[in-house]
Amino acid sequence: MTITDTTTETGTGAIVLGPNQYGKAEVRVVKITRDSDRHEIEDLNVTSQLRGDLAGAHLAGDNAHVVPTDTQKNTVYAFARDGIGSPEQFLLRLANHFTGEFEWITGGRWLAESYAWERIQLEGQEHDHSFVRKGQEVRTAAVVADGDERHVLAGLKDLKVLKSTASGFEGYPKDRYTTLQETNDRILATSVATQWRYLPGVVDVDFNAVYDDVKRILLEEFSRRYSAALQTTLFDMGKAVLEAHPEIGEIKFSMPNSHHFVVDLSPFGLDNPNEVFFAADRPYGLIEATVTREGLAAAPEVWASAVAFV
Amino acid sequence: MTITDTTTETGTGAIVLGPNQYGKAEVRVVKITRDSDRHEIEDLNVTSQLRGDLAGAHLAGDNAHVVPTDTQKNTVYAFARDGIGSPEQFLLRLANHFTGEFEWITGGRWLAESYAWERIQLEGQEHDHSFVRKGQEVRTAAVVADGDERHVLAGLKDLKVLKSTASGFEGYPKDRYTTLQETNDRILATSVATQWRYLPGVVDVDFNAVYDDVKRILLEEFSRRYSAALQTTLFDMGKAVLEAHPEIGEIKFSMPNSHHFVVDLSPFGLDNPNEVFFAADRPYGLIEATVTREGLAAAPEVWASAVAFV
Amino acid sequence: MTITDTTTETGTGAIVLGPNQYGKAEVRVVKITRDSDRHEIEDLNVTSQLRGDLAGAHLAGDNAHVVPTDTQKNTVYAFARDGIGSPEQFLLRLANHFTGEFEWITGGRWLAESYAWERIQLEGQEHDHSFVRKGQEVRTAAVVADGDERHVLAGLKDLKVLKSTASGFEGYPKDRYTTLQETNDRILATSVATQWRYLPGVVDVDFNAVYDDVKRILLEEFSRRYSAALQTTLFDMGKAVLEAHPEIGEIKFSMPNSHHFVVDLSPFGLDNPNEVFFAADRPYGLIEATVTREGLAAAPEVWASAVAFV
Amino acid sequence: MTITDTTTETGTGAIVLGPNQYGKAEVRVVKITRDSDRHEIEDLNVTSQLRGDLAGAHLAGDNAHVVPTDTQKNTVYAFARDGIGSPEQFLLRLANHFTGEFEWITGGRWLAESYAWERIQLEGQEHDHSFVRKGQEVRTAAVVADGDERHVLAGLKDLKVLKSTASGFEGYPKDRYTTLQETNDRILATSVATQWRYLPGVVDVDFNAVYDDVKRILLEEFSRRYSAALQTTLFDMGKAVLEAHPEIGEIKFSMPNSHHFVVDLSPFGLDNPNEVFFAADRPYGLIEATVTREGLAAAPEVWASAVAFV
Repeated sequence: MTITDTTTETGTGAIVLGPNQYGKAEVRVVKITRDSDRHEIEDLNVTSQLRGDLAGAHLAGDNAHVVPTDTQKNTVYAFARDGIGSPEQFLLRLANHFTGEFEWITGGRWLAESYAWERIQLEGQEHDHSFVRKGQEVRTAAVVADGDERHVLAGLKDLKVLKSTASGFEGYPKDRYTTLQETNDRILATSVATQWRYLPGVVDVDFNAVYDDVKRILLEEFSRRYSAALQTTLFDMGKAVLEAHPEIGEIKFSMPNSHHFVVDLSPFGLDNPNEVFFAADRPYGLIEATVTREGLAAAPEVWASAVAFV
Repeated sequence: MTITDTTTETGTGAIVLGPNQYGKAEVRVVKITRDSDRHEIEDLNVTSQLRGDLAGAHLAGDNAHVVPTDTQKNTVYAFARDGIGSPEQFLLRLANHFTGEFEWITGGRWLAESYAWERIQLEGQEHDHSFVRKGQEVRTAAVVADGDERHVLAGLKDLKVLKSTASGFEGYPKDRYTTLQETNDRILATSVATQWRYLPGVVDVDFNAVYDDVKRILLEEFSRRYSAALQTTLFDMGKAVLEAHPEIGEIKFSMPNSHHFVVDLSPFGLDNPNEVFFAADRPYGLIEATVTREGLAAAPEVWASAVAFV
Repeated sequence: MTITDTTTETGTGAIVLGPNQYGKAEVRVVKITRDSDRHEIEDLNVTSQLRGDLAGAHLAGDNAHVVPTDTQKNTVYAFARDGIGSPEQFLLRLANHFTGEFEWITGGRWLAESYAWERIQLEGQEHDHSFVRKGQEVRTAAVVADGDERHVLAGLKDLKVLKSTASGFEGYPKDRYTTLQETNDRILATSVATQWRYLPGVVDVDFNAVYDDVKRILLEEFSRRYSAALQTTLFDMGKAVLEAHPEIGEIKFSMPNSHHFVVDLSPFGLDNPNEVFFAADRPYGLIEATVTREGLAAAPEVWASAVAFV
Repeated sequence: MTITDTTTETGTGAIVLGPNQYGKAEVRVVKITRDSDRHEIEDLNVTSQLRGDLAGAHLAGDNAHVVPTDTQKNTVYAFARDGIGSPEQFLLRLANHFTGEFEWITGGRWLAESYAWERIQLEGQEHDHSFVRKGQEVRTAAVVADGDERHVLAGLKDLKVLKSTASGFEGYPKDRYTTLQETNDRILATSVATQWRYLPGVVDVDFNAVYDDVKRILLEEFSRRYSAALQTTLFDMGKAVLEAHPEIGEIKFSMPNSHHFVVDLSPFGLDNPNEVFFAADRPYGLIEATVTREGLAAAPEVWASAVAFV
C-alpha cells in the first residue's frame, strides 16, 4: 500500500495515488448443510477487498487489473458450496485464492460478521431444521493479507452486559469544570466490542472453540470483582483472555460506559436507594484500550485494516 | 376521540380538531430490585399519551388541561419505585392514575417495550448482580383506556426464525407478470411481530407467564409441520395460541417473508441442492393477518392505538 | 376485511380468520426518463398488499387465490416502464390493476416513499444527468382500495424544523409529580411527520403541485407566530393547509417535541442566556392530532391502512 | 500511545497495556447566537478522548489521572458559550485545553459531526429564528494531538450522488467466476464519505470556506466526464481538491458502488432501454483510496485516530 504513481504536476507538488483497496461488501451468504436430516446453518455477512497494482484504474481508466467486485461476490458463493467451517478459515481461503489467482493482487482484507442460530425446541426435542436467531452478540472476523503474510483477527460486538452494584468511580482529579460526584455503588453497563489478533502464523487453530471460550472469559471477568473504573475491568478482561489463550497476541476493546443515572425521586417524597435508573443514550463514556504481550511487534496497519464494517 | 370544537369557517367548511393524544415517548427506566444480595432487573421503554378535553391547547394556546409530558415522565419513574411486576400491570397503573387524577383526561394509551436480561454464569453459578442482555426478541405491551374501559395487548417483535426445509409455495395463479417458479423445498424465514389482545375485562392474569407460554407456542408451531405458505403457518401459530389461552381474544401478526434465494452456481460448474443461499434485504414479502374468536366484537380503534412506536 | 371463515371449534369458541393482507414491501424502483439529453429521475420505495378472499391460503394451504408477492413486484417494475408521474397516480394504477385483474381481490393498500434529487451544478449550469440527493424530508403516499372506493393519502416525514425563540410553555396544571418550570422563551424543535387525506373522489389533482405547496405552508406556519405549545402550532399548520387546499379533507400530524435543554453553566462561572443547549434523544414529547373539516365522515380504517412502513 | 507498563508474567510473556484512549462520545451541543434578532445556529455532535499516562486506572484501579468523561462533557458546553466558529477550530480549542491543563495528558482525539440548517422562507423572506434542517450530507471534523503536534482533518459523509449515464465498466479480467457483462452505459451512484488531512501546521485557515469549496468540487468532478470506473472518478475528485487547495495534503474516500440493476422486462413483452432500475441494498461495491501529494509523509496513526464514530 505505497504510493504507486505520479500523474500531474501542480504548483504544490505532484498528485499521486496512495493506499487503496476495493471489492464487494456485505455479501449475505447462508449455508445449509444437509448431509443428514439434521441440518446445520451458517449465516455470514462477508466483505472482500483487494489490494495491489491498481493504478491503471485510478489514473487511466484501464480496468485490466480490476477483478470485478461481482466476481468477488460470485467467488464467495462458490466457495461456500464446500462449507464455511469457521469465519476465519473461510476468509483465509478467500485471501489465498485472490492473491494466488491474480499476480497483481498482492494483498487485501476480508471481513465477516456471523449470526448465531439455535435449534427450536419442539416438545422438548431440538428440531432438525427449525432455528431461532440467538440474537445476542455479533461475531466478527478479519483476515489481512500482505504478500505471503496472513493476519487473523476475531472478535464480537453488541454484547450488552450490566452489573447492578460492585462498581464505583472515585479518586479522580477535579478542576473548574468538574461537577461529577464520587460513588462506590453504581450500575456499570456497556456493550462489549472487541477484537483479538492471533499471533503471526496462527492460521489453523479451532477458531470456533477459541471464540466460545473467549466469550465465556469476557463474561466471567466482567462479573468477577469490584470495578474501580471501566478501564480496570477492561484490562482484567483482556488479561484473562491472553492468560488462557497463548495463541492470541493482543486484544483491543471499545466499550461505551452506558450511563444509568439514579433518578432523584425526593421531589415526590420518595427515596431511591439505587433502585430506579434512567438509562441514557447520549452522550456516553467511550473507553478504548489494548491489552498485549510485552515484546509483541505492534501492527497498526493490520488493525487499521481489520475494523469491521459498521 | 371525537371531533371536539369548531374554530374557523372557510369556503370549504369549518375546520375543527379531530382525534388527538400527547405525552412522553420512550422513557427508559431500569428498575433494580435489591431486597437481597440477589438483585433482579427490569428494563423498559415506556410511552404515555393522554386523551381528553384538550381543545384549549390546540385552538387557543390555553394549557390549563395539558398535564406536562415532563410530569408524565416523572410519574413513570415515581411509580417504578414500587416495582414494575409486568409491563402490562405497570401500564394499567399509569392508565388508572392519569384518568383518575385529572377529570378532563378521559383516556389514553400507554406502551412499553421490555428487554430481557439473563444472569451471567461465573464458574458454573448464576451471578447475583451481573447480567447479559438476552438479545432475542423485544417484548411489547399496550394499554388503551377509554373512560372506564381498559384494553390490554401484549406481543413481541424481532423474533427471527428460519426453517431450512419443509416449506414450499405451489398452486398459485399465473398472469402475464408471473415469473416465479413453483417449489416444494425452500427456506422459510421471517421475523415475527405479533400482538394479542386480551379479552375485555382481563386485567389481572399472570401476564409474564402468558407471555412465556405464547412465545413457546409460536416457536413450536412455526416448526411443527410442512408450510404450504407463510399464511398457513401464520394461521396455525395464531390458532394454537388461542386454543391454549382462553383469556386471549385475538392475535395479529405482521411477518416478512425474508427471501433466501438459491444461488445459481452452475456457471462455476457446481450444483447447488439448496445449500447456498443469498439472504436478501429488500423487497420482502409482507404477510399480515388476524386470528380471532368468532363473535368477538372487533376493536379497530384499540388496535390503531396499540401499535408500538418503532 | 370481515371475518371470513370458521375452522376449529374449541372450548372457548370457534377460531376464525380476521382482517388480513399480503404482498411485497419496499420495492425499490428508480425510473430514468431519457426522452432527451436532459434526463429526469424518479426514486421510489413501493409496497403493494392485496385483500380479498384469501381464506384458502390461511386455512387450507390452498394458494389458488394468492397472486404471488413476486408477481406484485414484477408488476411494479413493468408499470414503471410507462413512467411514474406522481407517487399517488402510480399507486392508483396499481390498485386499479390488481382489483380489476383478479376477481377475488377486492381491495388492498399501496404505499410509497419517494426521495427527491436535485441537479448538480457544474460551472453554474444544471447538469443534464448528474444528481445529488436532496436529503431533506421523505415524501409518502398511500392508496387504499375497498371495492370501487379509492382513498388517496399523501404526506411527508423526517422534516426537521427548529425555532430558536418565540416559543414557550406556561399555564399548565401542577400536581405532586410536577417539577417542570414555566418558560416563555425556549427552543421549539420537531421532526414533522404528517399525512393528509384527499376528499373522497379526489383522484386526479396535480398531486406533485399540492405536495410542494403543502410543504411550503407547513414551513411557513411553523415560523409565523409565537408558539404557546406544540399543540397550538400543529393546529395552525393543519388549519392553513385545509384553508388553502379544498381538495384535502383532513390532515394528521405526529410530531416529537425534540427537547433542547439549556445547559446550566453557573458551576463554571458562566451565564447562559439561552445560547448553549443539550439536544436530547430520549425521552421526547410526542404530540399527535388531526385537523379535519366539520361533518367529514371519519375514516379510521383508511388511516389504519395508510400508515407508511417504517 | 506506547506500551506503558508490565503487570503479570505468564507462560507466554508479560501482559501489558497497549494503546488506549477514553472520553465522552457524542456530546450533542446546539449553540444559538443571539447578538441580534437574526439568530445563528450551530449544531454539533462532539467526541473527546484523552491519551497519556493512564496506566494507573487500567492496572491498579487508581483514578488519579482520569479526568472524568463527565468533566470533558462539561468542558464542551462551557467552551461553546464563547461560540463554535468552525468545528475544526472548536476541536483545536478542546485539544489545547486538555493537553495544557493536565500534565499527564499528552494527546488525544476530538471528533465532530455537524448538521446544516437553512432559514425557513416566510413569504419570500428568510426568517430570523426559524430553521429547517438541510439534511443533505453530514460534515465531519477531527483533531488529533500528539504532544505539541496538531493534525486537522475534515470531511463529509452521506452525500448521495447519481449519474444516469456517462458511466461504464469494461476491459476487466475474466476468470471462472466471472459472470458480469461489460457495459458502457450504466447508472453510477454512490454515497460519498471522504476526509481530507490539512498539511502539518495548518491550523488557522477558514475551515468553513474550504469545506464549502471542497463540496462544490466533489459534486462538479463527479459530474464532469465519462466514468470508466468508480476508481477513476474517485481519483479525479481527489486530484481536483488537491489542485485547488494547497493547504490540503491528502484526501481519502470510501465510496460504495450503489448498484442499480436494469430490470429485465422482456418476460412482460417490454423493452427496457436503461429506464427502469432496481436499486439494491446489499451487497455493494466498496471503493476506497487515497489521493496524496508526492513526498508527503504518510500518517497512518493520524488516520486511524480520525475515523469518525458511526
